[in-house]
Amino acid sequence: MAPLRESSGDPVLPDPPQGPLHVARARASFPWKELALFWEGEDTLRFKKAIFSALENDPLFAHPRGSRLSVEKYQELNFLRCKRVFEYDFLPVGDMLDSLPRVLALIECLGMYDWSLAVKFFLHVLTFGSAIYSSGSERHLKYLPKIFSLEIFGCFALTEVSHGSNTKGIRTTAHYDPSTQEFIIHSPDFEAAKFWVGNMGKTATHAVVFAQLYTPGGQCHGLHPFLVQIRDPKTLLPMPGVMVGDIGKKLGQNGLDNGFAMFHKVRIPRQDLLNRSGDVTPEGAYVTHVKDVGQRFSESLGSLSSGRVAIVGMSVVNLKLAVSIALRFSATRRQFGPTDKEEVPVLQYPMQQWRLLPYLAAAYALDHFFKSLFLDLGELQQGLLGKDRSVRQAELGREIHALSSAGKPLASWTAQRGIQECREACGGHGYLAMNRLGDLRDDNDPNCTYEGDNSVLLQQTSRYLLGLLARRGPGGARIESPLKTVDFLDGYADILGRRFEGSSPEDLLDSSESWDDAGTPPKVFLMVLEPPDVALGSPGNDLIILVTSTPPECPPPQSRPPW
Amino acid sequence: MAPLRESSGDPVLPDPPQGPLHVARARASFPWKELALFWEGEDTLRFKKAIFSALENDPLFAHPRGSRLSVEKYQELNFLRCKRVFEYDFLPVGDMLDSLPRVLALIECLGMYDWSLAVKFFLHVLTFGSAIYSSGSERHLKYLPKIFSLEIFGCFALTEVSHGSNTKGIRTTAHYDPSTQEFIIHSPDFEAAKFWVGNMGKTATHAVVFAQLYTPGGQCHGLHPFLVQIRDPKTLLPMPGVMVGDIGKKLGQNGLDNGFAMFHKVRIPRQDLLNRSGDVTPEGAYVTHVKDVGQRFSESLGSLSSGRVAIVGMSVVNLKLAVSIALRFSATRRQFGPTDKEEVPVLQYPMQQWRLLPYLAAAYALDHFFKSLFLDLGELQQGLLGKDRSVRQAELGREIHALSSAGKPLASWTAQRGIQECREACGGHGYLAMNRLGDLRDDNDPNCTYEGDNSVLLQQTSRYLLGLLARRGPGGARIESPLKTVDFLDGYADILGRRFEGSSPEDLLDSSESWDDAGTPPKVFLMVLEPPDVALGSPGNDLIILVTSTPPECPPPQSRPPW
Repeated sequence: MAPLRESSGDPVLPDPPQGPLHVARARASFPWKELALFWEGEDTLRFKKAIFSALENDPLFAHPRGSRLSVEKYQELNFLRCKRVFEYDFLPVGDMLDSLPRVLALIECLGMYDWSLAVKFFLHVLTFGSAIYSSGSERHLKYLPKIFSLEIFGCFALTEVSHGSNTKGIRTTAHYDPSTQEFIIHSPDFEAAKFWVGNMGKTATHAVVFAQLYTPGGQCHGLHPFLVQIRDPKTLLPMPGVMVGDIGKKLGQNGLDNGFAMFHKVRIPRQDLLNRSGDVTPEGAYVTHVKDVGQRFSESLGSLSSGRVAIVGMSVVNLKLAVSIALRFSATRRQFGPTDKEEVPVLQYPMQQWRLLPYLAAAYALDHFFKSLFLDLGELQQGLLGKDRSVRQAELGREIHALSSAGKPLASWTAQRGIQECREACGGHGYLAMNRLGDLRDDNDPNCTYEGDNSVLLQQTSRYLLGLLARRGPGGARIESPLKTVDFLDGYADILGRRFEGSSPEDLLDSSESWDDAGTPPKVFLMVLEPPDVALGSPGNDLIILVTSTPPECPPPQSRPPW
Repeated sequence: MAPLRESSGDPVLPDPPQGPLHVARARASFPWKELALFWEGEDTLRFKKAIFSALENDPLFAHPRGSRLSVEKYQELNFLRCKRVFEYDFLPVGDMLDSLPRVLALIECLGMYDWSLAVKFFLHVLTFGSAIYSSGSERHLKYLPKIFSLEIFGCFALTEVSHGSNTKGIRTTAHYDPSTQEFIIHSPDFEAAKFWVGNMGKTATHAVVFAQLYTPGGQCHGLHPFLVQIRDPKTLLPMPGVMVGDIGKKLGQNGLDNGFAMFHKVRIPRQDLLNRSGDVTPEGAYVTHVKDVGQRFSESLGSLSSGRVAIVGMSVVNLKLAVSIALRFSATRRQFGPTDKEEVPVLQYPMQQWRLLPYLAAAYALDHFFKSLFLDLGELQQGLLGKDRSVRQAELGREIHALSSAGKPLASWTAQRGIQECREACGGHGYLAMNRLGDLRDDNDPNCTYEGDNSVLLQQTSRYLLGLLARRGPGGARIESPLKTVDFLDGYADILGRRFEGSSPEDLLDSSESWDDAGTPPKVFLMVLEPPDVALGSPGNDLIILVTSTPPECPPPQSRPPW
């Protein structure tokens, strides 16, 4: 298949069709094409256009009209679409590492189309594939071609029915049997069943299963990942000893088959332990380069922080879609007016602007935050693969963990509230299923929960910050970090004493004032969001500090941002 | 059928079954049965028990397991259930007016079961039926027996595709033709199609249609309600000239058939104008006792404020259900603990309490607010039916309009946020469809929109308050109202100057301090809600003032509340 059907002579940003939105668009006070080019870059815009064009011209991707599909039919269609995305090969494997902006664009395009599809695709390629690549070793490389050819289809099985946030409490076991050189994977009871696992419900043939590793003496070495075949790739029937199925209808993302699995003494070869942080010899001795159990645990879960960063991006996509739908509706929906005959578009009412424009601003700010954090994460992962054991690398890991642990809640909650506001701002029409705001709300919702419940996750960032504060102590180390996102907190006493004294719009727009007295430019974005308040009381004065990891050598605004 | 199967000898509040919740229940610091009896009263509790018992024992009300019903099947089942509720005759028509608490209890029980059912039932009986009763006259009484026997099935058609909030802009016309003594109902174009009308999609045979009334000279007399037959009651086929259908899938309440209708010069008898506020003589002269067009408009829409009060109650039911689900889950779900082996119920974490308990408190406060407002509304309606034209009656109307216009947003938004918090507080399990939090969110959502968009509606209350302020002026009238809910605002200058100075839990619980210096007890409930905040910033200090209309002669707390 030839995905890039568009010739490079075509305009990358054609004029939108004439229609009811024309009047509003003509009133723009800035050239929108220049903004789009500045924000995305021509290569990314062309790449996105090629993807959308391929999907638009393929009947498999046509949205069914009228009543919706049953869950079963939707899941079936979603798998066929996922397979077709592999066939399009929008981004050949070899190009992935060299072209992070294109990876981002592919996630964004597939997610804009349908998160059930995007999540299914990336759970297989990135979550499952990366887990094998980064938690395994040379002996597991043989699986990678099978992943990309769809010979096997994968899932990542960590959460259990009774253990989500408390990952350490996971109870699936892997006992090593030296007589056959096998691990015996076992679920002691239903509470220890793997649960919520995306792709496991109907389609996965293999799973990366996290289990407590026991050596023959009965000693537990903590949680380790194992590659376990769960279904026959030809018939999709469960393997012996594996009880696997779909967990049932969810609030959203129902094209994705989330599943459960219980293992009854399932034997797998010793080699299928993903052994980057610890291994077992044929005789049954445990060997590791990581001495501390806690550190080993952290290392084996290292692949999770990329999930959180991805969720920041997913949330931004949902917010972009919702805000676009609501603003376009508001620019054409007319209600009331200076006379009984003449009505004005509701977007002209300050109340409607107050409801929607902060979320438009948030979409831009969070998009920038996501992209810069994604690049920082790439730097971290390069270091991990290169076995960088420097102090800076460790500090960078902690900082990105703290940023993603706060960034995911910020982005997913902002999207959640933003979509809800957009739904309400479109009135009854926002409540019609065909207008998609319901799907966006439902599909965004798990972003608040998976890869760490937002409220629990925020405590990770608090812990990081309090750790920096404790290390500082009286006359101790400065508060600083590799990406410099926390450096400004060193002056927290001064900051807490300050009050905002701006009194004009110009003051609000002036970003030149620096946080310290040395005249260096500020290293944080301040985004003031006043989400419409729930009640009769006065609007809250929520000040959301969005810490970006933009490096200080950020180019001046007339050139493109660094992604 | 005999709905009240329970003999009065049975305990009204049997002990709950032994199960995982037993430990948490045993820790209660107060006798829950006494609270339930105090709050609801024995008669209401027995009535509710009888309703639930009837539904539980009737297979028609069994929730289908597994995958969900299609919209079509769900609508069909919902109509059969609605019919069955009529057959049960839980509350005979004659008893309705004498037993408002039972009306409330019936709404609550049906809504707890499924809002699609409750809304379908009450749209027909209360909204459609009341519109005919209160907007019509003696000549329309013949329709009432047909309503209660289900010979005809009704809907209330006000909103159009392009006119929701701006009711005055509605464009359906009703031209009077004296030659045949008929009105000609007509939709000039699709934007003027009636839209969103509950029960209209598939099942209604008759509609109360709001249209601009024109007399032969071409003069428009504004919006009036007309009774229009839209379908043949035997075949459910549309009547000639009526194009009617279902508007398609919504985010929730899909058991309810919301519809649209266009009228192509549909002729109806002159007598089917609901003529309480204005009538047309056989010759075509317009006669009215209400001189001002604006006042006539207000009067013909008077039946809408009961809709808003009902929505307060609907929101409270949703909040009660969500909080119950989340608290029960939290009392049994264990995660983390003092040791690796021993985990504690998540409800014991202050964070979980902080997330959920304010919404539990809100459910009680709003329930009280709803019930007292409902009684006040009853007083208002008695006055309207008795043609009370006193100043007090007019003031009461304005006050209840202002209370319901603020109370609906307060209740529906609190429920919306509360359900979302409950969904998230249950983690992944809250995202499973079978756990119902998704349905509650989806079914509650339109409460923020219909009967007046929340944001627009709040301006009605602002207008009322600013009107009081303007009337007060320098040295003018005191700010006061029949239900005394605004009286405290007369001292607003003093109130704005006050700061809360409590420093202990006892200070927070002390409700004895009065708003004025005369020592009279406070006439407002202060409910401090700090909804979990969206982001990293400090929690907002949202102070929600819930004004109740509890009369000052409210009995002391040891006796039952006034409903």
